[in-house]
Amino acid sequence: MRTQVAIIGAGPSGLLLGQLLYKAGIDNVVIERQSGEYVLGRIRAGVLEQIAVDLMDECGVGARMHKEGLVHEGIELLFKGERHRIDFPVLTGGKTVVVYGQTEVTRDLMAARAAEGLQTIYEVGDTVSLHDFDGERPRVRYMKDGAAHEIECDFIAGCDGFHGVSRASVPRGAITEYEKVYPFGWLGLLADVPPVFHELIYANTDRGFALCSMRSPTRSRYYVQVPLTDKVENWSDDAFYDELALRLDPEARERLVRGPSLEKSIAPLRSFVAEPMRFGRLFLAGDAAHIVPPTGAKGLNLAASDVKYLSRGLVEFYRDRSSEGIDHYSERALKRIWKAERFSWWMTQLLHKFPGEGAIGQKLQEAELEYLVGSRAASTALAENYVGLPL
Amino acid sequence: MRTQVAIIGAGPSGLLLGQLLYKAGIDNVVIERQSGEYVLGRIRAGVLEQIAVDLMDECGVGARMHKEGLVHEGIELLFKGERHRIDFPVLTGGKTVVVYGQTEVTRDLMAARAAEGLQTIYEVGDTVSLHDFDGERPRVRYMKDGAAHEIECDFIAGCDGFHGVSRASVPRGAITEYEKVYPFGWLGLLADVPPVFHELIYANTDRGFALCSMRSPTRSRYYVQVPLTDKVENWSDDAFYDELALRLDPEARERLVRGPSLEKSIAPLRSFVAEPMRFGRLFLAGDAAHIVPPTGAKGLNLAASDVKYLSRGLVEFYRDRSSEGIDHYSERALKRIWKAERFSWWMTQLLHKFPGEGAIGQKLQEAELEYLVGSRAASTALAENYVGLPL
Repeated sequence: MRTQVAIIGAGPSGLLLGQLLYKAGIDNVVIERQSGEYVLGRIRAGVLEQIAVDLMDECGVGARMHKEGLVHEGIELLFKGERHRIDFPVLTGGKTVVVYGQTEVTRDLMAARAAEGLQTIYEVGDTVSLHDFDGERPRVRYMKDGAAHEIECDFIAGCDGFHGVSRASVPRGAITEYEKVYPFGWLGLLADVPPVFHELIYANTDRGFALCSMRSPTRSRYYVQVPLTDKVENWSDDAFYDELALRLDPEARERLVRGPSLEKSIAPLRSFVAEPMRFGRLFLAGDAAHIVPPTGAKGLNLAASDVKYLSRGLVEFYRDRSSEGIDHYSERALKRIWKAERFSWWMTQLLHKFPGEGAIGQKLQEAELEYLVGSRAASTALAENYVGLPL
Repeated sequence: MRTQVAIIGAGPSGLLLGQLLYKAGIDNVVIERQSGEYVLGRIRAGVLEQIAVDLMDECGVGARMHKEGLVHEGIELLFKGERHRIDFPVLTGGKTVVVYGQTEVTRDLMAARAAEGLQTIYEVGDTVSLHDFDGERPRVRYMKDGAAHEIECDFIAGCDGFHGVSRASVPRGAITEYEKVYPFGWLGLLADVPPVFHELIYANTDRGFALCSMRSPTRSRYYVQVPLTDKVENWSDDAFYDELALRLDPEARERLVRGPSLEKSIAPLRSFVAEPMRFGRLFLAGDAAHIVPPTGAKGLNLAASDVKYLSRGLVEFYRDRSSEGIDHYSERALKRIWKAERFSWWMTQLLHKFPGEGAIGQKLQEAELEYLVGSRAASTALAENYVGLPL
């Protein structure tokens, strides 16, 4: 088989890239380890920056997002038992975010891809290998239904996440990895109950962090910080709601509606960046190159901005015969990535209980939160990062 | 002997307080362990916020400060080999700081106290003890020239620093202490050479932090971050200047003038707060109650705001027969202290090399510094803290 761009991974990065390239007349094939159903079953983030919203529109798949997505004009910071609002439009000249689950983003992109008859090869498992991306004719090999296949292409886009084959295919000496692992995890619960509040609540408490998020007006996503040694099977739904309630203010506690968990899991928190993001004719995008702790809601949005830079570079390559865009892809993407890594780390260290920091850690966090909600400059710094720094 | 307020410690906090009380007609005596010469020989901070400048004026000792002090309208942040300016007046609606050494502040206050004939008892050593401050008639006892003395007073002001007797006199159960010790120190050198630049340079480098500060146009104060295990006797002046030069940008390196050290020492960095700051008729002020790492230049300024709150409270007590000011002293002072502790910690963690943080630590710092100098909101947050948050 022959295509222009072989895209590894059918998550939002890969599907967004495929759609943008298709719109520009660039032939592409998406190859995915898992089935489409499996990909849709993964519970992920749900807050879109304007840049991600615009990209969905550019892909022509924004209709349902605009209909069902919830425009959020702020978040609430809860500390010392009281909530304080950060107003995004007031602080950023009108900017907002949209709450729309990553699952829905993926579903819309899959549907669009299917409707256009574009090729997505699912369920290739661990058989994918990348070849010759240091030359002009890279190839992707995989097994499907017992038969060996090879795709010859101009470029490979590695959109296959942190554990994917793309980054692992780069010679060790060519890549530098930066990593920080946090000494706690997020226990998350998804349930079909109305959210405790119509905006997200980020809570700093003596007992640790909590987050009240949502996917829709009838589906809530709640998190509590837990030790990494905790096991999800030891957390009943009731125990989860009890702990969450202890980390909320009285009004939110009162409004908390309990319902059976649709999903419940413990996720570790990690900051990770691999540099560079281009190796000859292989590009990395999204989680394949970087991970942020979810506190700043930046994971999916960074994937979107990577794809924006990369698609623009590839379009320039084919349309204008210029390699300027792909030559600067890594540098441009990383500039934005490091700022989002910084913001995500900052939100994480501001809101979580760190073992070993002692009592002064909590006091310094409270002082920072008090300063933050009392200073227009500091509130603006939070807001402008949350809604997304400029490209 | 009888006085209204017995002030323990003849550093800037104690002398400022004594002067403000005297101006309001409140009798006070200052008691100091060391000699006046010893106090003046201590090399300390040198950046005054407007609040500290105003307080010197209120004390009637501002003349020399206005003549010799250097008004600074910004600082330079050096990272990734380049300097970026933070412009205070532009970002804070006209605010500035004044570079005027703590030694000079103390000298001016000592001279004023002597000129007014106010009593300062020097060289009492470790003989001071505080009594009955849980009642209405506190007493201070000390030995001087072989004889025992007692001062009966209405209030005791503990302005005797971190190692002083005042905080140590409080029953352990009545006080909560918060502390963080940093895993490095500052090697400082004072020399009569023109400063490398007319504003302060704060440098983040692979080799660690450096600061180019000054006391006057002909006296420089330079610092480099060193491991706590370093010994000052192993640092020759040449070795110091060599290391400093390696942490500067080429232009600053070129302009660095070397001269023999007048003083050279290694200071540890500490964040410390004791709560509350009032125990019956004993008040703590300045370093007796809190320590900040020197990175944010807040130590002397916090002492000044403590004294401002405390003197106001005492004046209200005597003049208006109201205890409102002294009753809220601790709470008001601590609100400002924690914000300055937060800022000082933030400046410290942003600029220093932390052992154990690994390569990602340096990258996150650089990302934050890049964001900081590129965002008006973030620059303003730095500037408004540096020039001093409102009382």
